Amino acid sequence: MTEATRPARGPGRRPGPTETREAILAQARELFAEKGYDGASLRAIARAAGVDPALVHHFFGNKEGVFIEAMRFPVDPAVLLPRILSRPREELGEVMVRTFLEIWGDADRRAPILAMLRSAMTNERAAAMMREFVTSALFGRIAQATDVPLLRAQAAAGQMIGLMILRYVLRVEPIASASEDELVDMVAPALQRYLD
Amino acid sequence: MTEATRPARGPGRRPGPTETREAILAQARELFAEKGYDGASLRAIARAAGVDPALVHHFFGNKEGVFIEAMRFPVDPAVLLPRILSRPREELGEVMVRTFLEIWGDADRRAPILAMLRSAMTNERAAAMMREFVTSALFGRIAQATDVPLLRAQAAAGQMIGLMILRYVLRVEPIASASEDELVDMVAPALQRYLD
Repeated sequence: MTEATRPARGPGRRPGPTETREAILAQARELFAEKGYDGASLRAIARAAGVDPALVHHFFGNKEGVFIEAMRFPVDPAVLLPRILSRPREELGEVMVRTFLEIWGDADRRAPILAMLRSAMTNERAAAMMREFVTSALFGRIAQATDVPLLRAQAAAGQMIGLMILRYVLRVEPIASASEDELVDMVAPALQRYLD
Repeated sequence: MTEATRPARGPGRRPGPTETREAILAQARELFAEKGYDGASLRAIARAAGVDPALVHHFFGNKEGVFIEAMRFPVDPAVLLPRILSRPREELGEVMVRTFLEIWGDADRRAPILAMLRSAMTNERAAAMMREFVTSALFGRIAQATDVPLLRAQAAAGQMIGLMILRYVLRVEPIASASEDELVDMVAPALQRYLD
């Protein structure tokens, strides 16, 4: 954050960049909850926060970026995608298993995923919001970039989501104590089959 | 329910069999919540309900049966297991996909599973209870009866749990609208690989 990118300050009354950023995120959370991911535009979020859309763009890049920050969603496709695509195609299964284990293995990153899943199980609004985000920002982009049919990408993701629930939520043995390599050896070939 | 199996009636004050059954389930729910699945014995449930353990046995068979009724758990291993074992080994993957689709596809049977999952995501007591039940009554018995290593049975179950969450909770497309046969064609070979 440089001086130049801060919003113009009035005579001691205008909020600083941290407050502005938080105010945008607060409005974004409300708008996403009210209108869902697709229904809340970056422009509407800016309007609700009383700032210029260019400032929202500056802080968060795009709507996806706002969503990830607002929801504290611990997976950013903009980080994930290049990492997945940098590896040979035949390692996709293994990369996927290791990426899920890394994210879910960290309690701080797992918590917000579980919070979203929990809400999605109770509340249709939350389910719609997560559905739209997961479909367009995650699956859509990964499937497009890798040429994997969406249905097969979802089968692979489903494998990992269920595995993570058994390992980290229910903590069922022996899967809860299995080593990362053990899980890669067992599951990566199944994912690779979906992704080939 | 025959006259002979009813609890002895006092002079007009003793509860009928329906009330007795419900009283046992209410005590069972409390004991399972307090002590977990392993910690709540059939004898302790009977004692809490003020009935003879033989009556609990008569109503529900065994502790598993009490649990399934008390938690309204929609999967009874005593029904599931013979059905799975009646089919040739090489159809295990397909049988598993179709069984999950049948149970989760029915909103009335899906609701209590989701309720348990939701609790398990919030509450360590609930997680422990579900973990113990799932491990001993479901995985343990199925793995034992089919000779499939527990870890591989869990990988297969994980595949189906995650798939069901994407299809019925998040309702992500195209997996939400895929036909049963499409899902069997795609997923059954992956399960079969785990179970072979």
